[in-house]
Amino acid sequence: MKNFKLRYIALGGTGDVTKNMHVYELYQNERLKDIIIVDCGIGFPQEKELGVDFVIPDISYLEDKKEKIRAVILSHGHEDHTSALPFHYANLGQPPIFASRLTAIFSENKLKEHGILAKINQIEPKKTYRFGDFEIVFIRITHSIPDTLHLFIKTPVGNFYHATDFKLDLTPPYGPPPEFEKITAAGREGVLCLLSDCLGAEREGLTLSEKVVGKTFEDEMRKTKGKFIMTTFSSNISRIRQCVEAAVKFNRKIVFLGRSMKENSKLAIENGYLPIPNGFLIKEEEARRIPPNKLCLIVAGSQGQYDSALAKLSMDQNPNIKITPGDKVIFSSDPIPGNENDVYSLIEDLIEKGAEVIYSEIGDQLHSSGHGNQEDLKFLIRFTNPKYFIPIGGNLRHQKQYQKIVSNLGFDKNSVFLLKEGESVWFLEDKKAILGEKIETKNIYVDAYGIGDVGNIVLRDRKTLATEGMVIVILIFDNQGKLITAPKIISRGFVFEKEEKGLYQKAKGLIEKLTKPRHHFHPNEIKKVIINSLEDLFYQEKGRKPLIVVETIVI
Amino acid sequence: MKNFKLRYIALGGTGDVTKNMHVYELYQNERLKDIIIVDCGIGFPQEKELGVDFVIPDISYLEDKKEKIRAVILSHGHEDHTSALPFHYANLGQPPIFASRLTAIFSENKLKEHGILAKINQIEPKKTYRFGDFEIVFIRITHSIPDTLHLFIKTPVGNFYHATDFKLDLTPPYGPPPEFEKITAAGREGVLCLLSDCLGAEREGLTLSEKVVGKTFEDEMRKTKGKFIMTTFSSNISRIRQCVEAAVKFNRKIVFLGRSMKENSKLAIENGYLPIPNGFLIKEEEARRIPPNKLCLIVAGSQGQYDSALAKLSMDQNPNIKITPGDKVIFSSDPIPGNENDVYSLIEDLIEKGAEVIYSEIGDQLHSSGHGNQEDLKFLIRFTNPKYFIPIGGNLRHQKQYQKIVSNLGFDKNSVFLLKEGESVWFLEDKKAILGEKIETKNIYVDAYGIGDVGNIVLRDRKTLATEGMVIVILIFDNQGKLITAPKIISRGFVFEKEEKGLYQKAKGLIEKLTKPRHHFHPNEIKKVIINSLEDLFYQEKGRKPLIVVETIVI
Repeated sequence: MKNFKLRYIALGGTGDVTKNMHVYELYQNERLKDIIIVDCGIGFPQEKELGVDFVIPDISYLEDKKEKIRAVILSHGHEDHTSALPFHYANLGQPPIFASRLTAIFSENKLKEHGILAKINQIEPKKTYRFGDFEIVFIRITHSIPDTLHLFIKTPVGNFYHATDFKLDLTPPYGPPPEFEKITAAGREGVLCLLSDCLGAEREGLTLSEKVVGKTFEDEMRKTKGKFIMTTFSSNISRIRQCVEAAVKFNRKIVFLGRSMKENSKLAIENGYLPIPNGFLIKEEEARRIPPNKLCLIVAGSQGQYDSALAKLSMDQNPNIKITPGDKVIFSSDPIPGNENDVYSLIEDLIEKGAEVIYSEIGDQLHSSGHGNQEDLKFLIRFTNPKYFIPIGGNLRHQKQYQKIVSNLGFDKNSVFLLKEGESVWFLEDKKAILGEKIETKNIYVDAYGIGDVGNIVLRDRKTLATEGMVIVILIFDNQGKLITAPKIISRGFVFEKEEKGLYQKAKGLIEKLTKPRHHFHPNEIKKVIINSLEDLFYQEKGRKPLIVVETIVI
Repeated sequence: MKNFKLRYIALGGTGDVTKNMHVYELYQNERLKDIIIVDCGIGFPQEKELGVDFVIPDISYLEDKKEKIRAVILSHGHEDHTSALPFHYANLGQPPIFASRLTAIFSENKLKEHGILAKINQIEPKKTYRFGDFEIVFIRITHSIPDTLHLFIKTPVGNFYHATDFKLDLTPPYGPPPEFEKITAAGREGVLCLLSDCLGAEREGLTLSEKVVGKTFEDEMRKTKGKFIMTTFSSNISRIRQCVEAAVKFNRKIVFLGRSMKENSKLAIENGYLPIPNGFLIKEEEARRIPPNKLCLIVAGSQGQYDSALAKLSMDQNPNIKITPGDKVIFSSDPIPGNENDVYSLIEDLIEKGAEVIYSEIGDQLHSSGHGNQEDLKFLIRFTNPKYFIPIGGNLRHQKQYQKIVSNLGFDKNSVFLLKEGESVWFLEDKKAILGEKIETKNIYVDAYGIGDVGNIVLRDRKTLATEGMVIVILIFDNQGKLITAPKIISRGFVFEKEEKGLYQKAKGLIEKLTKPRHHFHPNEIKKVIINSLEDLFYQEKGRKPLIVVETIVI
C-alpha cells in the first residue's frame, strides 16, 4: 500500500431519506487525490408549509476541492438523487457526469430546463470505469424506475458497495432482474463497507414485485364503467408502462395530465422506455369526444399537491375533462410522510365529485414499494458480507432498525455507522474504519423563485407570523423626541382589529405613556421598551406573542 | 300516530371524525316539541399550524330553541365527544347533562376548570330514561375508555340506535363485555335508523381486543434494562391501567408525567378506575432516587405535541428525569392523521438520546384501535337490522366504505345517508326518511386564549404571512399630498432586507414616482396603486406575493 486512506462524507442522504449526495475522498500521503460523488438530489423539508419548495445539499465544503472531483455519478433518475445538479453543476466546476441511459435522459432534460447544455455520459454496465484511483463496476438492480445502478467501488483502501435505493425484484415487468452474479462476485472479492438503502428496514418479509401492480390495474380496469384514472410519481415509468399496457388491452385511449407527467412520458416514449401503439395516445382536448369507458388518464399529483393536474380535476378546473360518477381513481403510491393530510383531502374531493377512489388503505397491491423490506436487505448483506455498514437513505429510526438487522445476522453492532448529514467516516490502511470529523452544513432552501433567498431568519419570522401574527407600531417624533401624531398600530394575523378596539386603545395609551418626552431620547431604546411592554400586554390579554415591529420616524 | 316527525341534524361528527354533536328534534303537528343532543366535543382542525388549538361546533342554529332541549347526553369521556361543553353550556341554556359515571367525573372536572360548577347526572344503565317524548335505553359497550354507552332511542316516529365510537371487545381487560342481549333486543323491537361509528370501515377483520396490549406491556417490560416509558392518550384509562398492572408485577414504581396524564389518572384513582397498590405511585421528584430498572413512567405526548411531557423528556428539559441508554419508550397509540411528522421527529429525538423506541411500524400489538373494523361493524348491522343508516365519526371516505359494507350485506345502498356537517335527515310518520335542509355552520376556532377570537380573516392573513411574508410601506405626507420623508419599507418573512438592498431601492423608487404630487390627492387611492405596483414588482423579481400593507400618515 502506498499510504492511502479514504474518507466518506454524506452531504445529504444519511439520517435523511432524500437530498442524496455522497462524497468519497481518496487521500495519498495525507493529501487529497481524487473525489467521486454519488448523486446530487433535492430534499423535501418540514418547512413545506412556510413556502419552501425543496432543499438542496450544501456543497460549501467542496468549494476549494473542485479540481479533485473526477466524476459525479447519478445512481438512478429520481429527483432526490439527481435534481440538485442544475443548481450545483457550475459550483462543482462542471465535473464529468455519468449515469445510466434513462437517468441521463431525465437529467440532461432537467439541466436544459435550467439553461445548462451539458452532456451526461451514459454508463455501459458491462464496462469498468476508472476515475483517478477509483475503479467502478456498475451493477444493474431493480427499483421503481428502470436503469437503476448499484456501484461496486474499488479503491486502494478497500472496496465499497454503494447500494442506492433498491428492492430485489425477481420478476421486474421490464428490464433485467438484479445482476446477482455481479453482486456476489463483489462479495467474493471482498467488501470493506456496504452503504445500503435502509428505508424499508421496519417492514418484514420481501418487497412485492412491481409486476403485481400490473395485474391489479387490469382487474380494476375490467370493473370500471367510467374513466380509469391512475396517479403515481411521474418518474415511475414502470408503473406508468403497466397502466398503459392494461389500457391497450382494454382498448382505452391514453391521456397524460400534468406537466411533469407529460414531460417524463414524452422522454420515455422517445427513448423506447414506454412503447404505445399508434392511435392510443391522445391529447387532453380530444378526450371529450371519447366515451368515458374508453379513456385512461395517467395523472400527476399523487401526493395531493394543491396545484397538480389531479387536484385540478378534483376541483373541476380542467376545461376538457370532468370527473363523473362511474369514474375510478387509483392512487398507485403511498403518501410520503407529512403529505397525508393533503392526500386524504384530495381523496375526499374526488369522492365528492362522484368518483370511486382506490388507495392503499383499502386496496392491496396498488402500490409496491421501490425500497427493499427486511429480507431484501438481508440478502444483500449476505451477498456482500462486508466488514462495515453505513445505512443510507433513511431517518435515524430506519438506520437503527438496519443496525438491528445487521446484528441479528451475527455481525458486530459496532460495525454499523449511524451517520447524520455532514458526518464522515475514515477508512484507514489497516482496514479499520473510524468516525471522522463532522462537516458543517446548513439548509439551503429553494422556492418557486430561486435558490437560497429564503433564509433561516425569514423562516423563523414566517413561523411566528403563521401562529401568532404581527403588530406594527409607527411613531412619528419631532426632533425634540415628542410624538407628532397619535401612535399608529397596524396588525395582521393577530386579532381582528374591528372587534378588538379596546385592546388597541390600551396599547395606544401604553405607548403614549412610554413616549412622554424625556431628557435623553434614543429611538432604539424607546423601541425596545415599547416592544417589551406590548409583548406583556398582548400576552396577558390574548395569550399570544405576535411579532412586534416598532418603526420610529423623526421629522 | 299523532302527527309526529323527527329531524336528525349533525352539527359535527358527520363527514368528520371529531367535534361530535348530534341533534335529534321531535316535531308534533309541525311544531318543535323536544330536542335531545348526543355529545358536545371538540375537533382538531387542519389549521393547526396557524396557531389554532381546536374547533368547537357552531350552535347558532339552536339559539332560539334552547327551551326545547330536554337533555345533553355524553356517550363517553373522550374530548371529541365532551370537551366543547364548557364553551356551550351557558348558550345551550344550562340543559340537564347525562353521562355514565367516568364520563361524568371527567366532564364535571372539565367544567370546573372553566369555572362552571354543574352537576352531571350519572346514568344507571339498567334504567330507562324519558326526555319529553324520547325514551332512551342505555347499552354498555366496549371502546378504549371505560363506561362507554350506546343509546337506543325510542320515539313516536321510530327507534334509533346511536352507536357512538365502539369496538366489539369480547375480552375487555376491565368492565363488562358488550351487552349483546340489549343490542339484539333493540333489533327485535325494530330499528328505524342505525347511526354507527364508521372510522374502522377500511380495515378488514375484527379489531384486536384491548387485552392483547397488556400482554405486550409485560413482554416488553421483562426485556427492558432501564426505565420503561409508556405514552398514550391520557383518556385511555384501560391502557394506563394495564401498564400500571405490568409495572406492579415487575416491581417498578410508577410516575405520571404531563398535566393531562396527572389529572386524568388522579380522577381515575380517586374513583376506583385505576387501583394502584400502596407505595407504587411516586412523585416526579422522587424518581431520581430510584434505579432506572425499577421505574415505569406513564407520559402524555403520544401525538408529538411540542410542549408535552414526552417532548420535554426528549429535549432533556425535565429537571428530575433524564433519558439514558437502556430506557425503552413505547408508543401505545398511532399518530392521528396529520400528526405523523411531529410523532416521527419526537421518535428520532428519543432515539438520539439513547432510548429504544417501539412504535406501531415495528411493534405489533402495542396499540389496539378503539374503533371497530369491518367485522365489528357488520355484527352491529346484523344485530340491529335497521331500515336506514347514518355513518358517523368518519370522513367521507370512511362513510363511503361503510356504505359498501351495508350494501354487501344485502341492504339497499340508498338506505345509507352520507351526511356532511349541518346536513339533516327527516324521518316521517310512514317510516320514510328523506334528506332535509342543510343548516349553515361555520368554524369556531379556539386557541390558547379563548374562543372565537381567531377569525377567518386572521387565518387567511396568517396563511399568506406563513408562505409569502409581509411588506409594510409607511408614507408620511404633508397636507398638500407631498411626501415629507423618503418612503419607509419594512418586511418580515419575505426576503432578507440586508441581502436584497437593490430590490428595496427599486421599490422605493417606484413609490416615489407614484406619489409625485398631483391635483387630487386621495390616500386610499394612492394605497391601492402602490399595492398593485409593488405586487407586480415583487412577483416579477422574486416570484412571491407577500401581504402588502401601505400606511399613509398626513401631518
